[in-house]
Amino acid sequence: MSGELFSEERSAEVVAASFAGTPDPRLRQVMTSLVRHLHAFVKDVELTEEEWAVAVDFLTRTGHTSTGVRQEFILLSDVLGVSMLVETINHRSGGTSTESTVLGPFHVVESPPRQLGDDIALDGKGTPCLVSGRVTGPDGEPLAGATVDVWQTNEDGFYDVQQPDVQPPGNLRGLFTADGDGRFWFRSVVPRYYPIPDDGPVGRLLAATGRHPNRPAHLHLIVAAPGYRPVTTHVFVADSPYLDSDAVFGVKESLVREVPEVDDPARAAEVGLANPFRTLTFDPILLRA
Amino acid sequence: MSGELFSEERSAEVVAASFAGTPDPRLRQVMTSLVRHLHAFVKDVELTEEEWAVAVDFLTRTGHTSTGVRQEFILLSDVLGVSMLVETINHRSGGTSTESTVLGPFHVVESPPRQLGDDIALDGKGTPCLVSGRVTGPDGEPLAGATVDVWQTNEDGFYDVQQPDVQPPGNLRGLFTADGDGRFWFRSVVPRYYPIPDDGPVGRLLAATGRHPNRPAHLHLIVAAPGYRPVTTHVFVADSPYLDSDAVFGVKESLVREVPEVDDPARAAEVGLANPFRTLTFDPILLRA
Repeated sequence: MSGELFSEERSAEVVAASFAGTPDPRLRQVMTSLVRHLHAFVKDVELTEEEWAVAVDFLTRTGHTSTGVRQEFILLSDVLGVSMLVETINHRSGGTSTESTVLGPFHVVESPPRQLGDDIALDGKGTPCLVSGRVTGPDGEPLAGATVDVWQTNEDGFYDVQQPDVQPPGNLRGLFTADGDGRFWFRSVVPRYYPIPDDGPVGRLLAATGRHPNRPAHLHLIVAAPGYRPVTTHVFVADSPYLDSDAVFGVKESLVREVPEVDDPARAAEVGLANPFRTLTFDPILLRA
Repeated sequence: MSGELFSEERSAEVVAASFAGTPDPRLRQVMTSLVRHLHAFVKDVELTEEEWAVAVDFLTRTGHTSTGVRQEFILLSDVLGVSMLVETINHRSGGTSTESTVLGPFHVVESPPRQLGDDIALDGKGTPCLVSGRVTGPDGEPLAGATVDVWQTNEDGFYDVQQPDVQPPGNLRGLFTADGDGRFWFRSVVPRYYPIPDDGPVGRLLAATGRHPNRPAHLHLIVAAPGYRPVTTHVFVADSPYLDSDAVFGVKESLVREVPEVDDPARAAEVGLANPFRTLTFDPILLRA
């Protein structure tokens, strides 16, 4: 026998060696590392046969729960912090630009193009909020005509696609184009915290481990401009519950903003909101491509 | 904010901390270790977003391929050496008893009870083989009445349940009871190497990594006796292809046996086999419970 046989001590090396002939060097690298870390985990906890069977069943049910409109494996990746880690590794900002965070599963429809100043709260419910900001490059140069794609939940904590019978299509979504000075502004409502779908295997894992399924209140943004690297991110509402325990670990300090109240009837009339209203200000900074 | 926010450097610690409130201490230990090793893997290879998406899709298809009669996640665990590692960790023999190996997915029906000397090759095909041995305890004490449950492929490399239209039910399976001296013997055919099911995601992974799907020829055994620890194992045929590259890493040196030919018409007539025939001898040693 030419190949080394399996042993507990050398299990990872023996299995990794079976991938030595992988034609694609990157796939070889990934599989070799996966085997090494997976075996280290099994040895670390001395996984029992019963636990192994529970894991096989959990993964199978996670697969069966995944359909065209629901992806339970992404949810699993999210609650284990893997989505956020992959996102962070692949979008290191270096501290000079707006930090990214997870895209999430609700950017499933195109945001409708809107005019600066439009109200995206088509159902007229919630606490009025003026959202505004200025898109610049790393040296503060304004990015005229930058696009700002936004989406958020309503005050009940649901996206339009989750409530097709309750919310009009495109509710709380919009694709805006910044003005010549990189500025954008629109009317909306204050977003609310909400639970990720928790009626499947991942929800049961959270329950079994004493974790809640909630994400703190946030506005999603994808900001882009020609010649610059686009950023996919959130702005988090500073007084939201769960800011220190986001179920998917998406919160970064630099993305949290106060949403102060403005009580000024003249200003309210000027922007077209009921008085008093709240304001959310966020200035995205993009890196050059 | 009281909780520590996510960062690339401290990702594993932050996510592990979210499991700190898990009521069951063992589940807490397993999840904490899983997170630590999973994050180490992602950082080690700096997984790209495209690779992450491929992994999510692979796991989803693996789930969708798993049905009541086929378990693709077990197959994945098998080809990554995880099944064998769990098996080995949970059945350390200490070198004084017969080593165990994987159960495999084909012990799905009860083996029919048979008499010593019976021929389990109900279809009469293949190279005749006399299988025999003696079951003892660690000090060589014979285990009278030990049970020896065996199953194997036919000469085409298939189990009866894989070929319900070709093989009679119970073909190449049998549950034997050792005699007063712990001895068992029966007639069969020499087992053949065979591929694990390779038409699903796991088969495509093997193909992409340049691995073959074959297992070397083996006879499965579960040997049990009151007051002793049962052992689930294989005997491998020494001249089989793939002995040094079992797709599921099940081979252990101590489980390999020569299957020599006997050319002796008188002996053949005595055991009820055509001359010449081959012989497989294996003496299981059980630990005390």
